[in-house]
This record gives sequence, structure tokens and C-alpha cells, in this order.
Amino acid sequence: MVSRTTTTVVALWRLALFLLPHFVVALDSVDGAVAAKPCRSASVDADAGCLSWRVMVEANNARGWRTVPAPCVAYVRSYMTRGQYGRDLTSVMDQVSAYVDTVEADDDGLDAWILDIDDTCLSNLLYYEAKQFGAYDPSAFKMWATKGACPGIPAVFELFATLQAKGFKVFLLSGRDQETLGTCTLENLESEGFLGYERLIMRSPEYRRQSSSQFKSVMRKRLVEEEGYRIRGNVGDQWSDLQGDYVGDRVFKIPNPMYYVP
Amino acid sequence: MVSRTTTTVVALWRLALFLLPHFVVALDSVDGAVAAKPCRSASVDADAGCLSWRVMVEANNARGWRTVPAPCVAYVRSYMTRGQYGRDLTSVMDQVSAYVDTVEADDDGLDAWILDIDDTCLSNLLYYEAKQFGAYDPSAFKMWATKGACPGIPAVFELFATLQAKGFKVFLLSGRDQETLGTCTLENLESEGFLGYERLIMRSPEYRRQSSSQFKSVMRKRLVEEEGYRIRGNVGDQWSDLQGDYVGDRVFKIPNPMYYVP
Repeated sequence: MVSRTTTTVVALWRLALFLLPHFVVALDSVDGAVAAKPCRSASVDADAGCLSWRVMVEANNARGWRTVPAPCVAYVRSYMTRGQYGRDLTSVMDQVSAYVDTVEADDDGLDAWILDIDDTCLSNLLYYEAKQFGAYDPSAFKMWATKGACPGIPAVFELFATLQAKGFKVFLLSGRDQETLGTCTLENLESEGFLGYERLIMRSPEYRRQSSSQFKSVMRKRLVEEEGYRIRGNVGDQWSDLQGDYVGDRVFKIPNPMYYVP
Repeated sequence: MVSRTTTTVVALWRLALFLLPHFVVALDSVDGAVAAKPCRSASVDADAGCLSWRVMVEANNARGWRTVPAPCVAYVRSYMTRGQYGRDLTSVMDQVSAYVDTVEADDDGLDAWILDIDDTCLSNLLYYEAKQFGAYDPSAFKMWATKGACPGIPAVFELFATLQAKGFKVFLLSGRDQETLGTCTLENLESEGFLGYERLIMRSPEYRRQSSSQFKSVMRKRLVEEEGYRIRGNVGDQWSDLQGDYVGDRVFKIPNPMYYVP
């Protein structure tokens, strides 16, 4: 009797030990849901709703949002830090690479690519994580950016290097304020290995009141109309990087459910 | 001793019974992964990769694909039929509604909306499910469409009715071939309650060689330039519905990981 019971105990422990890690892996991997908290269907439902929201952000259906919806803060943290963001980013960069393989830079030196900076070349994840993915706080963000401590995003750095090796002119186009953040941005890029690009274009005082989309359209228009560049590709984490005038032959949207820039 | 062992058995059964349903719910709900098959991390990893792919489709990063990637067929079936597609669709339609609330139709009767038909107004899910989400098969699709049995998509029907009630002119713009599918499409729309729209525009023979994007751009251009309509909104399941010329003041991308139309 004791022996049969013991066998049952062992079998049940085995079942529990078999189920438990898979359960954690499932919640963790499938869409970066929070694995640590107790698993209630309310939480799973919220995650499914937050997944809908995140896909809407990426498809540009959700616009003008000022902060991550409160029920999705834990979901976004988990998405960004537990693997799915990395997977999504790698998948997008694979698409970029496949496209880069199909385009050649002409000898005239006028084939250009545009890369955004924040959360394209350099990551602000540490900042947003510390701020609990809350609303945009211009002065706190400025303090963070001034440190020049944003880590480079390796998959984008790899693209940056490939483009230069293939003879493309790389323009880094950022809505950051040139006067106050010019030096620290330059130094941050340098410390993360972003060197040898054609030009860093930041927002000069006369564009402070324009949306990022308007400002970037004007800058691209100049490159094309006044300087004769052909924009062969354009990579950014915001749709405002990728819409408007002269967006380029092909645009790529890098995932970012942390904030929205108009 | 036996008593303590029995208590342990009960506690373990409770643990197993507590974990098991949550585990199934988690895989089922979080992103429509297949709950029925045995749970291996290879499957979870594949689902996480397929989620990346699906988000790339929605964000227009993945273009020109001819068929759902083989490892993602089960994922797409599950996504479409187990809840997440419905959730995503409802979320997008909520965004459309919020936007519709901000626009008014002028008395001149020239405020227009464009709605696509396939997998926007009418669903082809039954067909693609039966075809195992395989590659596009023009003659099989024609046979299916000829039946006129595509179910209307309720959330889009609701928008359709709201737009007409608000005085907008609704144009149904489809890449379907007018000559061969005109009558069955008209009848299918009617049987699903799509009545009272301004015009059904389908592909006439001279546009057979053009991409959907080119054809639809020309049709929208005519509406705007020749007839004076103002396109206030545009809803489709393909980016080719929503890009090109005269796309409208605002576009909305309805989810569709089943096929890609250039």
C-alpha cells in the first residue's frame, strides 16, 4: 500500500515537474506574457488584449497614444525584456538584409539610407523600464540622453556596418534637439561604434515646433531635391520616420510599443 | 506515514489540476497557439517565431510572400479560428469607430469611404481553412467566390451601416474580376446585408495585368480628381488597399495572415 502510494507520489511529482517549466516557457515565450505572476485567466485575457494593442501600434492603426495603456504596462515590460522583442527585431532585420542584398550602391556615391536614432540605432529601454513605461517626460528624457549611455542595438549596428561596406551613404536622422543634445548624441553614437556615417541630422531650433514627421520629411526632401541623393531604404521605430515625403524606396518598421512620436 | 503520504498525493493532484487548465488556457489564449498538441518547447518556439512573422505582415515589413511559411500553417489556423483574430479585428474596428466619431459628412454628398471586399466585408476564412492555408490557387478561389457564400464580417458590417447612417458615400473597391465574378459578388454582398452603398468597383478587363495596388490607385484617383469625392477613410486587409495614390485621410489595416496581394 505504502509502496503503491509512493509510486503515485513519484508519478505526480514527475507530472508536476514536467508541466511546470513548460507552463512558464509557454507564458514566457509565446508572447512575452508575465511568467512570474500567478496565472489567472484574467491576466491571460489582458495579455491577449495587449497583444491586439501592440499589433495595432506596429500596423499604425493605433495612433496618437500618449502612454502605454495601464493594463498593458506589465505586458510591455515582459515583451521588451523576455525575448519576443528581440525575436521581432531580428525578424525585421532579416527582412532588411534580404532587401539590402537586392540593391547596389552606384559609383556616384548618391545611394543613401536613412536610419533613425532612438530605439533604432540606440536603445532607450533602460530608461523606459526605470520609468515604468510611463508617459513621456521631456526633462527626464533629456537627463537620460545627456548621459550618452544608450546601448547600441546590435542587429541595427550590423545593418549600419553592412550598408557602409556596400558603399551606401548612411544618414542618421533624429528628432532630438541639436542644441541641447547634439554633443552627447554624437558621443553616444561614437562610444557604441557608430562611426563613418555620412551625416548626423538633428532638429535645429527652427524645427522645434514641427512634428517629427514634418521635420523629417523636410530633411529628406533636401537630401533628394537639393543634394541629389536616392533614398534606397529607411529604417525607424516610429511610423513618423517612415511616412510623409521622400520616404525612400522601401521602409522598415522596427518594433516599439513603449512610446508614440507623431 | 500513510496519512502524510496521502496528504502529499492530494496536494500534488491539486497542483497538477491547478496547473493543467491554466497551461492550456495560456497557450490557447495568449496568441492562439495550438493547445491540443502536446506541449513541447519546439512548438512554443515555432509559435513565437510565427508571431514575429505575423506582426511583420501587419506592419508591412514582410512583403511579396506567396504562401504562409510551412512551420506557421498550424499557427495561422489557430490564430484565425481560436479567438485572437477576432480580438485583433474588434480592436481595429474600435479604432475606426473612434475616428468616425471625429469626422462629419458634408451636405454636398462628396465625403466618401473606401472598403475592400475580400476579408474586409466578406470572409474567405472557410475557403482558406479548407485549402490548409496553402498557396493562392486562382481557379479554386474563383470556384469558391462563384458560390457567393462568403460570410459577411459582422464588425465591418457594423461600420458599413454606421458610415451610411452618418451620410458618407461608401465605395466597395475590389480587385476581383468584374466579368467573371461581378454577379456572384453583387449577390453575395446582398445576401450578407451589404445594401445601399454608393458603388461597387471591380476590376474591368483593361486592368487585369495591373497589381491590385496600381488598379486601386487609379480608381481612387478618378473618384477624387474626376468626381470630386473626398476620401475620409479607407479600410482593407492588404497594404495594397492602403498605399499608392489618394489613399484617403486615414487608413486602417485589418489583420490577415492568410495571403498577400501585391
